[in-house]
Parts: sequence; structure tokens; C-alpha cells
Amino acid sequence: MAAAAFFKQGKKIVAIGRNYAEHIKELKNTTPKEPFFFLKPTTSYVASGGKVEIPRGIIAHHEVELGLVIGKNGRDISQADAHSHIAGYALAVDMTARNLQDQVKKKGLPWSAAKGFDTFTPIGSFIPLSSTPNAQNLNLTLKINGEIKQDGNTDQMIFPIPRLIEHISSIMTLEEGDLILTGTPSGVGPVTPGDKVSCTLSDPDTGSIISTLDFE
Amino acid sequence: MAAAAFFKQGKKIVAIGRNYAEHIKELKNTTPKEPFFFLKPTTSYVASGGKVEIPRGIIAHHEVELGLVIGKNGRDISQADAHSHIAGYALAVDMTARNLQDQVKKKGLPWSAAKGFDTFTPIGSFIPLSSTPNAQNLNLTLKINGEIKQDGNTDQMIFPIPRLIEHISSIMTLEEGDLILTGTPSGVGPVTPGDKVSCTLSDPDTGSIISTLDFE
Ligand SMILES: [Mg+2]
Ligand SMILES: [Mg+2]
Ligand SMILES: [Mg+2]
Repeated sequence: MAAAAFFKQGKKIVAIGRNYAEHIKELKNTTPKEPFFFLKPTTSYVASGGKVEIPRGIIAHHEVELGLVIGKNGRDISQADAHSHIAGYALAVDMTARNLQDQVKKKGLPWSAAKGFDTFTPIGSFIPLSSTPNAQNLNLTLKINGEIKQDGNTDQMIFPIPRLIEHISSIMTLEEGDLILTGTPSGVGPVTPGDKVSCTLSDPDTGSIISTLDFE
Repeated sequence: MAAAAFFKQGKKIVAIGRNYAEHIKELKNTTPKEPFFFLKPTTSYVASGGKVEIPRGIIAHHEVELGLVIGKNGRDISQADAHSHIAGYALAVDMTARNLQDQVKKKGLPWSAAKGFDTFTPIGSFIPLSSTPNAQNLNLTLKINGEIKQDGNTDQMIFPIPRLIEHISSIMTLEEGDLILTGTPSGVGPVTPGDKVSCTLSDPDTGSIISTLDFE
């Protein structure tokens, strides 16, 4: 497969939790000693320009995140080798049924339903490596109806990209077309039907926009 | 894709928790009011005759389960339509890192790592519909080194097969090649390196064996 077809052909989405200190504070969570992750189904993808369906009774929060598109299969990938497994990037939103997630967290139950509804992973187009000089220094923003809600930089990650790939691949093989979501900066909050959500990924040094992602 | 290729081409494994009363008792869990599930990556499959790798420090429990192989895409599938989405069955074991799962349950964290290690879903071959007169009345057994550990019948499920498909597909689209694990009867326990594990799926009325699954 071409890595750019990850959206159609990839098999899994591995999403990192609690990777930005300010986001951990805003949800009153504890800081993890090592990365942790959950799985989202690829049936949750919706392309930029699409619509997120919020089921009745669900409070759906936006979490804008940098996605890593895996280009080469690997298990027990070292931090030194990690970048050779990345084919490119994608701007993504990890939509989360926050009220459902709060319930299952209290009961010690899986997060899969709270994170896995159809259309709960809005995704921008494939970003080739050549478009991103340094993935660990990119601005991520999310606006709702023109108002800025999230504005972070990937240099604020607690566990940097190579550490995430090392950790996940110590448990499960990463395959071509898999997507890793690297966690969200602070500012998460609800999206309500009719809201227009727009996200950007940009280079803080030049100000140039690398990717955009829009949905309703 | 041919449904029989689910093992190579399928995208997701949706696994139901706590669907047999005696198993809920043995783990001192509470009985759910509706089905719940978690996701396992397809990288966790290992074919019959293979080897389960148990990472150092992990207590790995066997859970023998009936797998449903999805043959037709669907969302919001009604109980009446559920059987038309099943292409066939597979005998499976949902290996679980029980000590890790106990930890994350206490902390309200995802189950994905505890369930998702490579080789943590031993899987038998595809069983066509014609081999199973009634999927809701099949014997499931698991032996370790010849000693019987699990011996249940799918008629003991709290939520029957159509209810499981209705519930999962109310949250996420089921796709051709997806596998649903329907929960395990009581008798779960540790597998240790060197153990020979053998499972059978059989028809209780005739005693005939429909499928076997063996691993070390
Ligand atoms: Mg989970
Ligand atoms: Mg997230
Ligand atoms: Mg199970």
C-alpha cells in the first residue's frame, strides 16, 4: 500500500493518552510514568470537510493531535530506529465521548466505546516527511466557530515521538498504514451539533501552514 | 475479500467482556446491564499450532471464546438482521495479561495493552455456517497439558449473539473480516511457558467436534 492510503487501508489507530502536562491538569488526571495508549477503530475516520455524528446523550470533546503514519512494519523498535518507521504525518482530532469515558474510568472498564464511535477521528490528508522539518516542533490549533480553543506545540509532549513508537512496538507490531495519535494539548471541550471546527498544523519558525482539517 | 481470509485481511477484533455469569463470579466482577467491549489489534492473531509469547513479568490468562466472523458491512444492525452479517465462526482464545489488567482497572486506564500483545489471540480456522447448526448451543472446552480447565456452552451467554451485534454496531460500523469475540465461560487461569493448550468447539447434541485450536 502507499502510506498516503492509510485512511482507507490502515488497520489500526493507536492513541496515546495524557502526553501534555497542561491537558493532564485540566482533566485532573495524574501524570503517567510511562506512555499508555488505547485503540480506535479505523471505522472512526472521517475526512476533512465531513461531519462528526454526536449520538444522543453524548458530550463529545475535541482533542487536536499530531498523527504519525507508519510506513514500515516493526516490533520492538528502538528510539534510534523510530523515525525510519514513519512515512509521514496527519492532522487529526481524537473525538471523545467525555461523559461516557468518565463513567467507564470510574468502573475500570475499557475506553473503546467512548473513543470509537463512527466519525470520532476526523483526519486531514497525508503529510509527506518533506513538509515537516521537525515534527517535534509544530503548532497545533483548533478553533470552534472562529474562536481559538486549543493552541499547543508538539515540543510540549511529555514522551517524545521516538519514545511513543518504542513503547507501543514493545507490545504490538506496528504495520504499514497504522496511525499513532500522539496526545492532545490543553483546551479540550465540547463540540455541539452545528459547530464549525477548524484545525491547523503549522511551522512555528516560519508561520507557514502545513495542514488544515475542518469538520462540523 | 473472502470471509475465510479474516485472519489476514480483517481490520478489527471486538471482544465482549463478562458475558458468562460463572466467569463474572470467579473474577468477582459485577454483571453488566448492557454488553461492553474492548478492541484487540489484528496483530495479536496467531494461528493454531503456533506459540503464545508471554512477556516477562506478565501473568497471561486463557479465555476460550466463540468468534463471529463478519461477512457484510453494517451499522445499527437490528437483532433480526444480525445473523445475515455473520459469514462464519472461529474458535479463539482471548489471552489476557491479568496482572496488568488488574492494575489498569484500578487506575481507570484502557485495557488495550493488557489485551493487545502480539500472539494474544490464538485463532482456529474459519468455520462455515454449514458446520454449525446452532451457534447459541455449542460446547467450548480448553485443556492445559490434557487437564480440562474451561468447559462451557454458548447457551450460557448473558447477552446472546444478535444482541452483541446490535450493541457493537450501534457504536461502530462492522466490516467484512472483523471478528467478534463473544466472552468466555468460567475456568480462566494462567498459561505458563511450555504448557500445551488445546481447545475444542463441539456440538453437544451429536458430540461431533466442529473445530480445534492448539498452541503452546
Ligand atoms: Mg480499551
Ligand atoms: Mg486523545
Ligand atoms: Mg475475553
